[in-house]
Amino acid sequence: MSAASEPPPRSVSRRGLLGFAGAGAALTAAGFVGGRATAEASEASQAPSAEGAAGAYPFYGEHQPGIVTPAQDRLHFAAFDLTTTAREDLVALLTVWTAAAARMTAGQLVGDEATAYDSPPDDTGEAIGLPPSRLTITFGFGPSLFRDAQGRDRFGLAARQPKALARLPHFPADNLDPARSDGDLCVQACADDPQVAVHAVRNLSRLAFGTAALRWSQLGFGRTSSTSTAQATPRNLFGFKDGTANLKAEDSAALTEHLWVGAQDDPAAGWLAGGSYLVARRIAMTIETWDRTSLREQETLVGRDRREGAPLSGGTEFSEPDFALTGREGKPLMALNSHVRLAHPSQNDGVQMLRRGYNYTDGNDALGRLDAGLFFIAYVRDPRTHYIPMQTRMSRQDGLMEYLQHRASALFAVPPGASEGGHIGQALFA
Amino acid sequence: MSAASEPPPRSVSRRGLLGFAGAGAALTAAGFVGGRATAEASEASQAPSAEGAAGAYPFYGEHQPGIVTPAQDRLHFAAFDLTTTAREDLVALLTVWTAAAARMTAGQLVGDEATAYDSPPDDTGEAIGLPPSRLTITFGFGPSLFRDAQGRDRFGLAARQPKALARLPHFPADNLDPARSDGDLCVQACADDPQVAVHAVRNLSRLAFGTAALRWSQLGFGRTSSTSTAQATPRNLFGFKDGTANLKAEDSAALTEHLWVGAQDDPAAGWLAGGSYLVARRIAMTIETWDRTSLREQETLVGRDRREGAPLSGGTEFSEPDFALTGREGKPLMALNSHVRLAHPSQNDGVQMLRRGYNYTDGNDALGRLDAGLFFIAYVRDPRTHYIPMQTRMSRQDGLMEYLQHRASALFAVPPGASEGGHIGQALFA
Ligand code: HEM
Ligand code: HEM
Repeated sequence: MSAASEPPPRSVSRRGLLGFAGAGAALTAAGFVGGRATAEASEASQAPSAEGAAGAYPFYGEHQPGIVTPAQDRLHFAAFDLTTTAREDLVALLTVWTAAAARMTAGQLVGDEATAYDSPPDDTGEAIGLPPSRLTITFGFGPSLFRDAQGRDRFGLAARQPKALARLPHFPADNLDPARSDGDLCVQACADDPQVAVHAVRNLSRLAFGTAALRWSQLGFGRTSSTSTAQATPRNLFGFKDGTANLKAEDSAALTEHLWVGAQDDPAAGWLAGGSYLVARRIAMTIETWDRTSLREQETLVGRDRREGAPLSGGTEFSEPDFALTGREGKPLMALNSHVRLAHPSQNDGVQMLRRGYNYTDGNDALGRLDAGLFFIAYVRDPRTHYIPMQTRMSRQDGLMEYLQHRASALFAVPPGASEGGHIGQALFA
Repeated sequence: MSAASEPPPRSVSRRGLLGFAGAGAALTAAGFVGGRATAEASEASQAPSAEGAAGAYPFYGEHQPGIVTPAQDRLHFAAFDLTTTAREDLVALLTVWTAAAARMTAGQLVGDEATAYDSPPDDTGEAIGLPPSRLTITFGFGPSLFRDAQGRDRFGLAARQPKALARLPHFPADNLDPARSDGDLCVQACADDPQVAVHAVRNLSRLAFGTAALRWSQLGFGRTSSTSTAQATPRNLFGFKDGTANLKAEDSAALTEHLWVGAQDDPAAGWLAGGSYLVARRIAMTIETWDRTSLREQETLVGRDRREGAPLSGGTEFSEPDFALTGREGKPLMALNSHVRLAHPSQNDGVQMLRRGYNYTDGNDALGRLDAGLFFIAYVRDPRTHYIPMQTRMSRQDGLMEYLQHRASALFAVPPGASEGGHIGQALFA
């Protein structure tokens, strides 16, 4: 699907892009932003502030929302593949998505509620009357946006592909489903109400009609991390607190060092400065087997106690683990193959990541085992230093791996925030 | 899998039934009830009352909870098949499930938190620290519990099978997936927090290990009905209010007439008096096509306006539709093929049902279309009068059917509530 080898691209008109809008209501990206919200929706969004009573976060800003934003309760994540070969269609899509995201995070309807009665409504409607619910929408660009599988430049962007933006390598024990992996674009919608997150993905998907198609999507029902010191630590499906030791919004020095791409990180990809990289891994947990393991074994493998989340070397939840302490028979209290030991900065050249994952349950298999696990999401400054080495070692040594299976994988570059009047990823196209 | 043709059933011990409990912690059903909750959990459940501040509903009572209980926000529904052929195993399972359900709805852990360190924990742990979240657990018995596919009596219960408890007929346009349909037993877990609902199904599934296996399960993320006049009407994925005209908890005369099985309804099945029937239908909605339909068409097919939910014959949300009113060209304002017209009691011998369904989204298909729809749940006094005739007519005439596909189906008899010390369905085995 290279632009070079294809017939001249069919230019997708705005009406094509916004196909649903109907002849009488063709929207310009600008008119789009100006659409009117319903009474209910605008009421709820009158005081949008980072932690406002209405629970609305601003979409525009230095960084995209949904990264250091205190992790919301629910997730709908979606990956899209472009079906167009025209660069201007891609830009038009990002422009329309940006406007729609700004509206939806403010609790407004997509487009104009007052569409003609004989046209389809601009907004699909299932979130009418619901508050913004702390919705954030975060966009990312996959490696395939820059080059196709044959290495061809799809949209004239190849020269600006970040060096760190390459498909993740195959890790030991990976058992990946390609249909649930990768993608040209990604959308992470997080909200405290899943109906609001689903509504966001559905409407963005609809706006993409004719330009990009949904490749895969994932719902998450419970967060597995804290991204702010103001949040209580949630639990994953192994029953353990997850998110205790995480990069948090309050530690801006650590965010600068480990989370945000710096202006000098990659000269050819300066457009990504102030952005980050998003690693997504669908990790199935064989919970039936885990559930038959003793509490001792479980805690040993994690390296923390189940009830409080304190390191096995002692203290309380937020105590630093002491990897030198030994117990009976001189064994380290923090086992050598324990997850927390292998993931700790002290064992990883000091690197840290911002984890922002969610528990999922997607029915069950033919043997009656729940298809459940962790949809792991991490944001890092550079996957080559901050994710790949750790994952490689954990895939080999982590005792938890006996109960895990990595079933899908994706990496996206997450551009910096958009400014009002601009669109997501604008600097990439400048 | 008929009991008659199988070798003598291997008697499943309590330890087998509660296989996870480990040798040192084998639990009796009674000891089970007495287990200790965590500090967090018991705190949250100190004042369990129907609408208590802690959000806990009592499990024991005349009727099972989760029927007229104000519909909670989230659902995890599961169907199980028995893997045992022994009646005593079935009774033991229902006994253990009853005790576990009573504990979980009160916000307590399953079993005893103080299990030996060398045993697996009784509770899987992911809901530790979460409030009861208005959890209800509702159990049902499928037709296959009474007779297998060859008509053989599986557990000596065939003589007491209710006449109305037969697999639902094939309706016009049904396109059912057998792997997601039917089941010997069902569990409906509803809560305001999906992690609490998932925890409930997971722990009941674990308690069933060796006796019953998960057949299928379904998550729902947004309710599509109100079951109390105190609730605001939610919206389905067509963007319309759903649940406006529904049986509601406050109308006890209508509940007696249309919801609860009466003592004289079926002399052979007196054990079901005070219970009800649960119809489950997984209805896929082709939302991409719907989204391209004009607002006029959408409202005409439903019979109500999208914004307010008022009948097209006029008034506000709770006005009664007037089916005689006509508009331009003498056409009825409530179209003949409109959903609300076809479903209205006046067109259905006066019958009403209690709908209690949920929106679902389960990823997407290979064409990038969201696999989304309505997991329809309805409770009725008798499916032969209160569901089958209406569904038959709607499958043929309902204009909405163009955008719907019924993909799974199940019917369960829902016994009355259990009393403390007893178990769900006890009268069936008496
Ligand atoms: C289903 C899979 C996983 C489970 C159940 C899991 C669970 C946990 C738990 C319980 C903790 C301790 C609490 C905390 O500090 O948050 C933890 C910490 C951590 N995990 Fe995982 N994890 C999983 C996958 C991963 C993966 C794939 C990575 C990255 C390659 C990762 C990186 C980390 C890091 C960096 C920490 C913090 C370590 C520290 O600084 O103490 N985890 N995880
Ligand atoms: C995806 C499938 C369905 C959708 C989207 C849907 C949607 C709606 C909507 C929007 C209403 C009007 C609001 C209200 O009164 O609650 C309604 C009413 C109703 N629906 Fe459905 N429905 C679906 C399937 C069914 C099925 C399968 C049945 C039963 C066979 C059913 C029975 C009813 C009844 C009894 C009413 C109330 C009618 C009245 O008394 O006015 N619906 N439905």
